[in-house]
Amino acid sequence: MRKINLGIIGFGNVGAGVIKILREKKALLTEKIGIEINVKKVCDKDIVSKRNVSVDKSLLTRNPKDIIDDPQIDIVVELVGGISPAKEFIVGALNKGKHVVTANKALLAQDGQELLSLADDRGKNIYFEASVGAGIPIIKSVREGLVANNFKSVYGIVNGTSNFILSQMSENNCSFNQALKQAQEKGFAEKDPTLDIEGIDSCHKLVLLTYLCFGKFVKISDVFVEGISKISAADVCYANEMDLQIKLLAIAKKEANDLEVRVHPTLIPKSSLLASVSGVFNAIYVDSDLAGDLLFYGPGAGQLSAASAVVSDIVDLTQNIKAGLFKPTLNIVQDKTIKNLRNTDDFESKYYIRFMALDKPGVLAKISGVLAKFGISIASVTQKEHCKAHAVPIVMIIHQSKERNLRQALATINRLDVIKEEAVAIRMEEI
Amino acid sequence: MRKINLGIIGFGNVGAGVIKILREKKALLTEKIGIEINVKKVCDKDIVSKRNVSVDKSLLTRNPKDIIDDPQIDIVVELVGGISPAKEFIVGALNKGKHVVTANKALLAQDGQELLSLADDRGKNIYFEASVGAGIPIIKSVREGLVANNFKSVYGIVNGTSNFILSQMSENNCSFNQALKQAQEKGFAEKDPTLDIEGIDSCHKLVLLTYLCFGKFVKISDVFVEGISKISAADVCYANEMDLQIKLLAIAKKEANDLEVRVHPTLIPKSSLLASVSGVFNAIYVDSDLAGDLLFYGPGAGQLSAASAVVSDIVDLTQNIKAGLFKPTLNIVQDKTIKNLRNTDDFESKYYIRFMALDKPGVLAKISGVLAKFGISIASVTQKEHCKAHAVPIVMIIHQSKERNLRQALATINRLDVIKEEAVAIRMEEI
Repeated sequence: MRKINLGIIGFGNVGAGVIKILREKKALLTEKIGIEINVKKVCDKDIVSKRNVSVDKSLLTRNPKDIIDDPQIDIVVELVGGISPAKEFIVGALNKGKHVVTANKALLAQDGQELLSLADDRGKNIYFEASVGAGIPIIKSVREGLVANNFKSVYGIVNGTSNFILSQMSENNCSFNQALKQAQEKGFAEKDPTLDIEGIDSCHKLVLLTYLCFGKFVKISDVFVEGISKISAADVCYANEMDLQIKLLAIAKKEANDLEVRVHPTLIPKSSLLASVSGVFNAIYVDSDLAGDLLFYGPGAGQLSAASAVVSDIVDLTQNIKAGLFKPTLNIVQDKTIKNLRNTDDFESKYYIRFMALDKPGVLAKISGVLAKFGISIASVTQKEHCKAHAVPIVMIIHQSKERNLRQALATINRLDVIKEEAVAIRMEEI
Repeated sequence: MRKINLGIIGFGNVGAGVIKILREKKALLTEKIGIEINVKKVCDKDIVSKRNVSVDKSLLTRNPKDIIDDPQIDIVVELVGGISPAKEFIVGALNKGKHVVTANKALLAQDGQELLSLADDRGKNIYFEASVGAGIPIIKSVREGLVANNFKSVYGIVNGTSNFILSQMSENNCSFNQALKQAQEKGFAEKDPTLDIEGIDSCHKLVLLTYLCFGKFVKISDVFVEGISKISAADVCYANEMDLQIKLLAIAKKEANDLEVRVHPTLIPKSSLLASVSGVFNAIYVDSDLAGDLLFYGPGAGQLSAASAVVSDIVDLTQNIKAGLFKPTLNIVQDKTIKNLRNTDDFESKYYIRFMALDKPGVLAKISGVLAKFGISIASVTQKEHCKAHAVPIVMIIHQSKERNLRQALATINRLDVIKEEAVAIRMEEI
């Protein structure tokens, strides 16, 4: 039986999972694919610490060149993460004529275009199923299962940590900090949670989803990103009363000839399937022109879940190698109806807005006067509590408005002497 | 550029959809796959009626042999449906060395094993993505995306008609017949809706999902099937009050070394994602050992949705043909831990039970006495209304019980003189 040799760079959690699966499922995989997948070398800076899988010492190395320069290795699995030296490993592997499997969303979001184009030039593939939604086969589904489709929009809950925190806040009516602490205690959040809670990880995944659905690599800096750290228990509670659920959504959508790409806390109707995605789970919703509205749901992280996706990429590559077939990476074609990336100022959205105002006659008139001046139309208003001594929350839902107008209106309102705190504005989506 | 020739047998709704997509997305597909897909012949008994896509007369034929015997045709797309002559067309195509794409769940559920084994012998593939969940890429996901996974269970809402009816009953509190009438008016149900509402279509799809997840082709007659036509508005309403949603589920699950395969109305917690799948939508939930709990959701029917799946199969085949690669059909391997197909009598389940009993002292004692005799333990009891003149509904939830015991207990209870109607029993699942 033909044997295909793997080199794995990065013997961390996911790397150990890949080795575990390849070992425990060896018989199953061999029977399915008719090829033996052989882990020839495993490289890590740390080859001493115990993992939950043991590897023969002779396979372990601290030198990535032992993998990249080995002519017998067909596929390099990069699981180091981060930009450098992961990028050098991938470039090196491609230049040495190897296929690459990676889960590195940060690197692909930053340099994906360059790396995929290098892979094309070299007649090799970079597969990266594990980089979005871990074991959920979203990339294969979009790329192959929906091959004939054009996409109108993609909405993703793609960061389990943020979704856990927002779910906790909503279910237990606790503060952001309390929920974050729980996430950290359960091992769902890092000690420094910035990447997750500030939407950066979601942004990386959105860049990849945008590429897959629209064939366009947007720059990380072109994505509008707002995290969840400023979400208050009060707003979650008021939203709840209006049958709205708050989610950190990664959104790419076509509006006329523009493409909007944005990550932000979003209020969606509780009746929406995405609203029911709670805890550390992920879900990606796509609106396609032929197959319709689809949702893919599953755990967004976890050793075996991510490793399951890495192994499926490896298996796909073994089939390509066996056939001597080169599929240009991903067969992604740019949607030619997209002319521009829409400027943040021109986004249009419904909004939930909370003002903290003095409870006296004429306040609502002042606020709504300013909104009217900026062409913003109010869908509903609720004054939440009544208490003469303090400012009271006034919650408004406003109709579809331009971001630019809303910002200007809020800046004006925030300066009114009856307003006691900066207004909170949360975007809404009908999904 | 290489050209691959298709013959399409069956110029109905889906067939017309496939032609429409291949025409309207020609540039996109050619750019993605580097191969021209050419519809060389289209066969149907009726080549006169207008469809929503026009086909050059020279391509149309009434004679399937014009396709099956044409050596230039590489792929035969069978969209006739039903057993005969669809089976003869597929067998003929395979014997003439052609790959086959079909959406024919009824045929594959009955003769899939024979046809897939013939395809293997001939070194050809039968692809059938459109046969379950239309455009949802569930088959590719299980087969390729989750290639290293073993499965514990699969739960599917795979019949849009039934799901529409149950959703209507639940949302509008109407009767089965009223909901069926609405489904028929909207074109979601056939004039003779038997296949859909009696669970037969779901059973066909379950046979295919079971094959995909467990590598075992179960016989249609070995699947326990119960439809939705006896579900009453009252039970839907009582279930609702208990935060339960009723769904027609197709279930395959491993219990120890047994495999259970069954289709029946099922009460599930409203908090479950499957409970939120309403209307004509489909969803398939799989519990996998590596990637975890996954859900795939989308429209379960529709011309372009089904055709989207057919086209993805065609594209996959063009890649195989281009590479001269034969992938043994589906690479499905039997789960060797499964020893038996579990007998219906040995199914275990929680149950919702409704008795219609006289409202007098001792009734509950009699009922619970019989249940206790058969080892059935009660989780909760509610007497729904109080009305001396008539029988009153008593709703019970019982703990996990063997089907055999429950049937015997209910038969005994139904014979009690205080019982005025046959007891209603609906299985429950915790998903």
